[in-house]
Amino acid sequence: MTHQSVVLDSGQLHSSLSDPALTSMNLLNEVAGRYPEAIAFAAGRPTEQFFDVDDLHRDVARFREYLLRDKGYTPARADRELFQYGRTKGIVHELVARNLAVDERMHVDPESIVVTVGCQEAMFLVLRALRATADDVILAVSPTYVGVTGAARLVDMPVLPVREGPAGIDLDDLAAQVRAARAAGLRPRACYLVPEFANPSGVSLTLETRLRLLDLAEELDILLLEDNPYGLFHDGSGRPPTLKALDSRRRVVYLGSFAKTAVPGARVGYVVADQLVDNGSLFADELSKLKSMVTVNTSPIAQAVVAGRLLRFDGSLVEANRREAELYRTNLRLLLDGLEARFADRPDVTLNVPGGGFFVVVTVDFRCDDAALERSALKHGVLWTPMHHFYAGTGGFSQLRLSCSVVTPAQIETGLDRLAAFVREESAMLV
Amino acid sequence: MTHQSVVLDSGQLHSSLSDPALTSMNLLNEVAGRYPEAIAFAAGRPTEQFFDVDDLHRDVARFREYLLRDKGYTPARADRELFQYGRTKGIVHELVARNLAVDERMHVDPESIVVTVGCQEAMFLVLRALRATADDVILAVSPTYVGVTGAARLVDMPVLPVREGPAGIDLDDLAAQVRAARAAGLRPRACYLVPEFANPSGVSLTLETRLRLLDLAEELDILLLEDNPYGLFHDGSGRPPTLKALDSRRRVVYLGSFAKTAVPGARVGYVVADQLVDNGSLFADELSKLKSMVTVNTSPIAQAVVAGRLLRFDGSLVEANRREAELYRTNLRLLLDGLEARFADRPDVTLNVPGGGFFVVVTVDFRCDDAALERSALKHGVLWTPMHHFYAGTGGFSQLRLSCSVVTPAQIETGLDRLAAFVREESAMLV
Repeated sequence: MTHQSVVLDSGQLHSSLSDPALTSMNLLNEVAGRYPEAIAFAAGRPTEQFFDVDDLHRDVARFREYLLRDKGYTPARADRELFQYGRTKGIVHELVARNLAVDERMHVDPESIVVTVGCQEAMFLVLRALRATADDVILAVSPTYVGVTGAARLVDMPVLPVREGPAGIDLDDLAAQVRAARAAGLRPRACYLVPEFANPSGVSLTLETRLRLLDLAEELDILLLEDNPYGLFHDGSGRPPTLKALDSRRRVVYLGSFAKTAVPGARVGYVVADQLVDNGSLFADELSKLKSMVTVNTSPIAQAVVAGRLLRFDGSLVEANRREAELYRTNLRLLLDGLEARFADRPDVTLNVPGGGFFVVVTVDFRCDDAALERSALKHGVLWTPMHHFYAGTGGFSQLRLSCSVVTPAQIETGLDRLAAFVREESAMLV
Repeated sequence: MTHQSVVLDSGQLHSSLSDPALTSMNLLNEVAGRYPEAIAFAAGRPTEQFFDVDDLHRDVARFREYLLRDKGYTPARADRELFQYGRTKGIVHELVARNLAVDERMHVDPESIVVTVGCQEAMFLVLRALRATADDVILAVSPTYVGVTGAARLVDMPVLPVREGPAGIDLDDLAAQVRAARAAGLRPRACYLVPEFANPSGVSLTLETRLRLLDLAEELDILLLEDNPYGLFHDGSGRPPTLKALDSRRRVVYLGSFAKTAVPGARVGYVVADQLVDNGSLFADELSKLKSMVTVNTSPIAQAVVAGRLLRFDGSLVEANRREAELYRTNLRLLLDGLEARFADRPDVTLNVPGGGFFVVVTVDFRCDDAALERSALKHGVLWTPMHHFYAGTGGFSQLRLSCSVVTPAQIETGLDRLAAFVREESAMLV
């Protein structure tokens, strides 16, 4: 008998593995990996200019000092808190609640917070909890961050698109989609959106739209999943309160990230889930039960890195990100001005003008698919993200997303020259 | 109109949330939390005696030094590696592969390793990948670690029990269960087991049983999911190779944990998944796609803590755990001797005698359910784990698990006196 190595049948693996939502991320990373010299407007990563390994050591030490002094722990207990298995809902929930009060005037019970392995785990847990049967669906303002679509695929939950429109969410379409889904026997559970500088479109909701959305959520009896990774990075003109800060009816599940405001490498995020469940528990406690079977608990060492940062700036990420916010504002201005200057003679090339965040969307007259990206990288040395990935294959084929968060001003100028050349060439091919 | 807070219907949340596999963990933690003064033989946590925050700083610095010196990274690139979003499969895969070669004589391609948020995420990803339809099931040697049962619940995958028997796995029962499942239209995908010092039973498989199990896995066309958290903590009499080290046919998916051998608070584990998939990829790459939608990537800071520890001991966790292994050996001996001395007059009270690991199982003549645990904690000040939690409600009602990993020798003596008083009282109530 010869020993044969097993070969797994891809048709017998979970269907998400062949879904574009999961494969597109890999594909885009793979293209970027093949063109390391290209100027990358592609990744929505925070700036790397201020990374400092000494900060890491100081922040961990600061959190330990806080455990000793403010919490009255013995050194042995503080070390246990840092190194041992720990509370499933996390150990920095009080500091997270304080941050939300300081920066967002959002007052939440620390017990309603689950600290997660990045915002991605928070999304995954919420969707896993809400997907009880094959009839459960969520809605999402389209274009949608692919992380949500992917997490939904993992729990076999369809994502129904809601039109974005100029207001950031088309409320009539939301109502129509929910009603149509119910008429078809489906159970719409929640609507996901990024109300502030949406990824990828950069659109923000006005205060009035936020209030109307909260009323509509009650009327339709759905939850709202609010994701807010970029809220702090605005143009200085102020911004309305978050949906959660306006939420008097516990309709909003708030998804928090420290990846852009503290350290991506900590992989620490959180969810505020203060909804009551009819069994007497908080929704946060239900999510915690799920978390115990996905990651057990979030690394307390990683939590300490984020907590130390929060303590260093007295709970304020606005204060912690003064340099970063200034850099993003400058870069966004350079990107917008640079695009306008280069496409002044092309009224058919249009762009959105977000009040903050990392992203600008450019609409062109040719097909911006993955093959176009490959040509752009190979012939012009510039990378961007095809927008169709955010539409789950239903649109965005003539749009590209530019991110300005990890490029220098000089790279922006050179990168835009290259992009302009690419656009000229692609448009010329149409004739 | 008065504003009503939403109340979620627990019947409309995912079924796992009401499953004993998820609620029992909470219940046991909750009992332990209410009796902080009780002596706890309950938790399977590593010793806390050697936790040292200075080690954390030194280990991170050591890993950064390795990036600079051994990998030739610039300081900026090293900091990016530590702080930025990173490779989904992890950044310490080469060091993990080296550790497996050094300690386990297991030679694996670093590309077949996915670094995960603890071993729990590794289990979850493997089960998510293998559960494609409602017909897919896994098997698990019973009693089973609840983390597997819970992860399976999250993906709606039944877990069929396989008898453990004196060999650690009853191979005839495994074959019978797989055939019966197939006859019932089910699709058995894999069998989960802990071949070395199983949790909770402490049983180990002989070399011969391992070889026969590998042959049987091929014959039955299933995978083996090998979990090995305690392998290093043996009584010095040596141990057979892991299933993965013996696996020439890529039938074994190896689940790795650093929680007991490095730092639980890092929450770093891994999976070796070197199986080929018929689409040309490695199973590890499929798992990585799923991971990108659960946690994106494992905190590189947490990975650095583990990697620094590996570098400190030249890749060997055997070397890194000399003090810990000695402590566990001493404690296990004290526990076994103490039990024998206290129950010498009770031939009906029996126990297993594992060659290592953290756990001893005691069989008594009364019902050891959660109510008995509560009485034990309240009246006698001693905590243990009711074994029925590891049988998914199908057995173990007269067994309790004792863990000796986080107690001192003095606590073992006092705790066993209390346990003996509890057993006497419970047995007397039967008369």
